[in-house]
Amino acid sequence: MIYGPRDIRFEDRPEPIIVKPTDAIIRLSATCICGSDLWPYRGIAEVAQPTPMGHEYCGIVEEIGREVRNIKPGQFVVGSFATSDNSCVICQDGYQSSCVQREFMSAAQAPILRVPLADGTLVATSDLPSKELIPSLLATSDVLGTGWFAADAANVKPGKTAVVVGDGAVGLLAVLSAKQMGAERIIAMSRHESRQKLALEFGATDIVTERGDEGIARIKDLTKGIGADSVCECVGTQESMMQAIRSARPGGFVSYVGVPHGVELDGTELFFAHVHLHGGPAPVRRYLPELINLVLNERINPGKVFDLTLPLDQVAEGYRAMDERQAIKTLLRP
Amino acid sequence: MIYGPRDIRFEDRPEPIIVKPTDAIIRLSATCICGSDLWPYRGIAEVAQPTPMGHEYCGIVEEIGREVRNIKPGQFVVGSFATSDNSCVICQDGYQSSCVQREFMSAAQAPILRVPLADGTLVATSDLPSKELIPSLLATSDVLGTGWFAADAANVKPGKTAVVVGDGAVGLLAVLSAKQMGAERIIAMSRHESRQKLALEFGATDIVTERGDEGIARIKDLTKGIGADSVCECVGTQESMMQAIRSARPGGFVSYVGVPHGVELDGTELFFAHVHLHGGPAPVRRYLPELINLVLNERINPGKVFDLTLPLDQVAEGYRAMDERQAIKTLLRP
Repeated sequence: MIYGPRDIRFEDRPEPIIVKPTDAIIRLSATCICGSDLWPYRGIAEVAQPTPMGHEYCGIVEEIGREVRNIKPGQFVVGSFATSDNSCVICQDGYQSSCVQREFMSAAQAPILRVPLADGTLVATSDLPSKELIPSLLATSDVLGTGWFAADAANVKPGKTAVVVGDGAVGLLAVLSAKQMGAERIIAMSRHESRQKLALEFGATDIVTERGDEGIARIKDLTKGIGADSVCECVGTQESMMQAIRSARPGGFVSYVGVPHGVELDGTELFFAHVHLHGGPAPVRRYLPELINLVLNERINPGKVFDLTLPLDQVAEGYRAMDERQAIKTLLRP
Repeated sequence: MIYGPRDIRFEDRPEPIIVKPTDAIIRLSATCICGSDLWPYRGIAEVAQPTPMGHEYCGIVEEIGREVRNIKPGQFVVGSFATSDNSCVICQDGYQSSCVQREFMSAAQAPILRVPLADGTLVATSDLPSKELIPSLLATSDVLGTGWFAADAANVKPGKTAVVVGDGAVGLLAVLSAKQMGAERIIAMSRHESRQKLALEFGATDIVTERGDEGIARIKDLTKGIGADSVCECVGTQESMMQAIRSARPGGFVSYVGVPHGVELDGTELFFAHVHLHGGPAPVRRYLPELINLVLNERINPGKVFDLTLPLDQVAEGYRAMDERQAIKTLLRP
């Protein structure tokens, strides 16, 4: 529970129960803290009342509502941070995170979780996965799905050059995603050694430590003077957004996947930048089957972004470590 | 020449000559006034000094510089409002209006015009076209090319629904373009009867006269409550841009092709709108061969947007008529 800025409390709460016939109750194998959880933690997003936190989850189905058809008790499932019916016209078009019935998940930093619209939100594996794969499967629930959307929305293609702005867990997994999509050159913008190392491990070919105009000049140097084909903005600030737009070539693609905080785009600059811009809440549900398979086949290991694992009752310490950038991302064991 | 707000003068000027070896000099068959010329006319864009106006043109090549290879004297040519070498990596990618050597044309409201980078900017027809086709060929130079880019950048596809915001000449030709690209439903937003009529003639299936929230509500009514697949913003104001973004479905495509004036986009609203956004100066050169062919084969008649024709020496009257919306677009005969 968050009570206010830097006030995270582990406390007993009533166990969730089936509320609607389309709900499922799952016992979480693991959960974690998201970079976006730091906005209220840092007081940048308002905390109006004590709020249960967390929206990344995977685990075993305990109970289902009477209208749930595809998900069965005992299955291992992963779900998106946004619920979806996976059947409306928006879902059919692959934008499940804007489903007409969408709810944003909360209360996933807990042992047990209620998931609405279980059939459209959850994806089950055919067998129970091994314990070693749990961190990577958990990652598909949001942080990998969001990094994947960043690369996809930035039109990363074989042979192209991609830039990733932001070395948080999402940015690092945008690097991994760009690599999977065949980018020839992947430039990670990072000034933190441990994050640079992980970026290189995930497939980055170049590291740019400069920011602002100097960072843009470095990107231009690396891209024949014209800018990158694809740029993934994985922070959500004005500075990072402008960094991204100015690093792209005319006709290039810029994606943005973190909720923008205080971002205003000047129409004239955007016009002459001549870029494609696409972003929003990542439609993780669209990608989940593919991402889960990549993990189960050990083609990718996105769970490496979890460089701190804590028992759930030490959740406050997990926030503190991420806030101070001592940890990239904290996995919590219920 | 424009001297200041609402001060257009027809006057004698030195005849243009070859300046660079890549230039061509052409005798114009026709020229015209662009909606964007009204920004300085109305005092919204500054006029720092007396400036020769006009950037839409077609005509007969009179002379070429010594490095011009593909364009020959005596040919009929159309060129884009933006010059391009048509060979740099940006041009090869189809973004000729951001060519590394780009210049924006001016001084085309004249009998004779110098065109830089003639080989990369001009497209010649194999024969001299008939007089009747001149208005439509002139239209390909900017207004049709820009409307076409609006539809293309908004991802108009067979069977999809397209909305066009703005009933100026560009908006009307975005309707024509969306029709050519196979849109099933084309909703033109217009409150002017003569423009509605032309929109319907060009292929609009629905007219929405409401604006703002009411206009958005009407679009939602017409699109199963979710918004349109494609929205073309053809005005360049804050109001029209927000109208466009709010009329698109999540996952939909919004294009904008008029230089924005005073437009600021809120990052958070854009994020949750979940749209693709693309625009900028239309890469007309990319489309010119195709558009010229469509005109020569009489498949399209974009010249219908010229509802006023004046001799060049009455250019000031042409501006006045467009400013007061008495004319959609003025063709000038040199």
